[in-house]
Amino acid sequence: MRILLLGGDGYLGWPQALHLSARGHDVHIVDSLVRRRFDLEHSIDSLVPILPLRHRVACWKHLTGRSLSFEVADLTDHAALSRTFADFRPEAIVHYAEQRSAPFSMIDREHAVFTQVNNVVGTLNVLYCIAEHAPDAHLVKLGTMGEYGTPNIDIEEGFLEITHKGRTDVLPFPKQPGSFYHLSKVHDSHNIMFCCRIWGIRATDLNQGIVWGAITDQSTLDPDLATRYDYDHVYGTALNRFCAQSVLGLPITVYGRGGQTRGYIDIRDTMCCIELAILNPPGRGEYRVFNQLTEQFTLLDVACKVAEVARAMGYPATLEHLPNPRVEAEQHYYRTVHTGLERLGLQPHLLDERSIRTLLELAARHSGRVDPSVLSPRIDWRRLRNRVRED
Amino acid sequence: MRILLLGGDGYLGWPQALHLSARGHDVHIVDSLVRRRFDLEHSIDSLVPILPLRHRVACWKHLTGRSLSFEVADLTDHAALSRTFADFRPEAIVHYAEQRSAPFSMIDREHAVFTQVNNVVGTLNVLYCIAEHAPDAHLVKLGTMGEYGTPNIDIEEGFLEITHKGRTDVLPFPKQPGSFYHLSKVHDSHNIMFCCRIWGIRATDLNQGIVWGAITDQSTLDPDLATRYDYDHVYGTALNRFCAQSVLGLPITVYGRGGQTRGYIDIRDTMCCIELAILNPPGRGEYRVFNQLTEQFTLLDVACKVAEVARAMGYPATLEHLPNPRVEAEQHYYRTVHTGLERLGLQPHLLDERSIRTLLELAARHSGRVDPSVLSPRIDWRRLRNRVRED
Repeated sequence: MRILLLGGDGYLGWPQALHLSARGHDVHIVDSLVRRRFDLEHSIDSLVPILPLRHRVACWKHLTGRSLSFEVADLTDHAALSRTFADFRPEAIVHYAEQRSAPFSMIDREHAVFTQVNNVVGTLNVLYCIAEHAPDAHLVKLGTMGEYGTPNIDIEEGFLEITHKGRTDVLPFPKQPGSFYHLSKVHDSHNIMFCCRIWGIRATDLNQGIVWGAITDQSTLDPDLATRYDYDHVYGTALNRFCAQSVLGLPITVYGRGGQTRGYIDIRDTMCCIELAILNPPGRGEYRVFNQLTEQFTLLDVACKVAEVARAMGYPATLEHLPNPRVEAEQHYYRTVHTGLERLGLQPHLLDERSIRTLLELAARHSGRVDPSVLSPRIDWRRLRNRVRED
Repeated sequence: MRILLLGGDGYLGWPQALHLSARGHDVHIVDSLVRRRFDLEHSIDSLVPILPLRHRVACWKHLTGRSLSFEVADLTDHAALSRTFADFRPEAIVHYAEQRSAPFSMIDREHAVFTQVNNVVGTLNVLYCIAEHAPDAHLVKLGTMGEYGTPNIDIEEGFLEITHKGRTDVLPFPKQPGSFYHLSKVHDSHNIMFCCRIWGIRATDLNQGIVWGAITDQSTLDPDLATRYDYDHVYGTALNRFCAQSVLGLPITVYGRGGQTRGYIDIRDTMCCIELAILNPPGRGEYRVFNQLTEQFTLLDVACKVAEVARAMGYPATLEHLPNPRVEAEQHYYRTVHTGLERLGLQPHLLDERSIRTLLELAARHSGRVDPSVLSPRIDWRRLRNRVRED
């Protein structure tokens, strides 16, 4: 199948390109490389060294004989994207090409505006290109579980049957996103749903949990194929930070009380979910939503899991609670439905002792590259609220 | 009270400025005048002649002795807006400054992107300016009833108590907007709700129905104070089009079957609603939603009402059904809660025979200015769907 992979140089986009290429699909990568520029601007870097896109692609060709084509282009450049659609005529579009960090979007007004304009306009351009050039193609769009927030009811997959004053309808699940980034994904979801309705586009919106792991079947073939491992305060996940802190003998820092519960998924499962969505497209005009996670944990659960394995490996691994830089419930109900992808055949890899050990070993191997100065939170959701009070 | 009136040169913004000034408030208008540029670009014009902003303001000063200050600036220019906030130190901000036409947003990709970026970034800038310069000020933001779409359950005011699998929560009412414009307002609503939560901003989101009428207590003082009356296919309402068609002896054109039901409100009631919201602000951190409408009608109801009065005035006033350029349900359940503003004291003016006669007389007085070529719908929601089928 001809698959256009938007954001194919990123943490998930790159191993996804390899995964789909390995399965025999014809993959064309579009990436603006802006994520590498963010590293420079914020003095952060992947813990695991990554190669320039050109070299990664050459390595893959050398190892497997398979070709990946790629171009450097930004989705907000509609003319460029339009040419790509006209030339490549994709049958499926996998859309990873968004600014994906919540803290980044909360730095200041400029970063909030950049995140929303970049993500919303990029996705609008993709939708127009599909309608104009590839009306039968299937859009597979990465959303986030963070779109839902933490409601006091079970989180269904995109839609909810509601009975109110004796009448019933199935309506979009109410959203309560927690950052300008998460908001941008909610905006996207509404825009995509509308385009499916008016133009008959087919789309799958994958509300993904927090992805852990950096190793896939393809990335293990050669260190030159490695994907990113972010542990810093802008792009890093808590789990990655915990691993980096552990191998440096630093305390594992939990923001707030630690009762924040979220969905999680192994990077290998993400690879499979995208493929399963592609192989089982929705009908024309259908807007389909899956919750892409396999387990859920509180932040404290995750910290304790990492600490336990780290201690067994000989690290001190103490826990420390820091003031929470985010505005979020720290103790709340959380239960999610995530049966859609499992029905399509997903077989989850769970976050067990062995998986955590693998992550800690990866962090240990590159511990010389950890910059302790980027481990502490410096982006404060309440910044303007706090500043105002000081006046 | 010091009130910053964003979009104070528009259809509602201008009479709102007069209304608030007449009540003794200190009103500062910000407007980019972009609406007047749209008229030029689309070869459309207000049926009732309107004066340049400078002359309107001078006329008001001359007639009443009251000063309105104003500046020409665009909300997407954060630096300019920030200076205005710092200088004027508003206690309330009334935000009418958005691209407000659904057909305009559906012309093509450029207009869709313009509408969403203009509205979303403009509102983000307002939110940041409030947090930075006027944390106690009250944002009164114009939303639209079109954010809700036409669900099969009663439409509550912004939030809905949902019981699901035995658990209950009060969540944002699910939104199903019907154009890129309506989507932009949904995006705004989510952004505003979030800023109230993280920064403690106080905001009222007014989901307004279709406004009818062009005459307020102040605008009648002098023809130079008149506000717009739009009847064209881009900015006009169906009711205004029906009146323009009637006085020209043309058939009244109903899109589709005409069962499309919407909320309506008299322009004089809009003026009062804004004032009532300002005088009764929500608490710090509160995001409050009112549905700003007083009655609801089907499109066919409205057409028949106009036809009846027009016939009594001697016009032929026949009805004609046209293919619907929009994608919308033409027969559906529709029931809305709109008690919040009435509880604050709103006393509705209803769309009765006398009101319609006034509208028809206004149209008749300016019938020489009606351009019949802009009465027919030319902007098609299904454009890309249709084009694709022809390929």
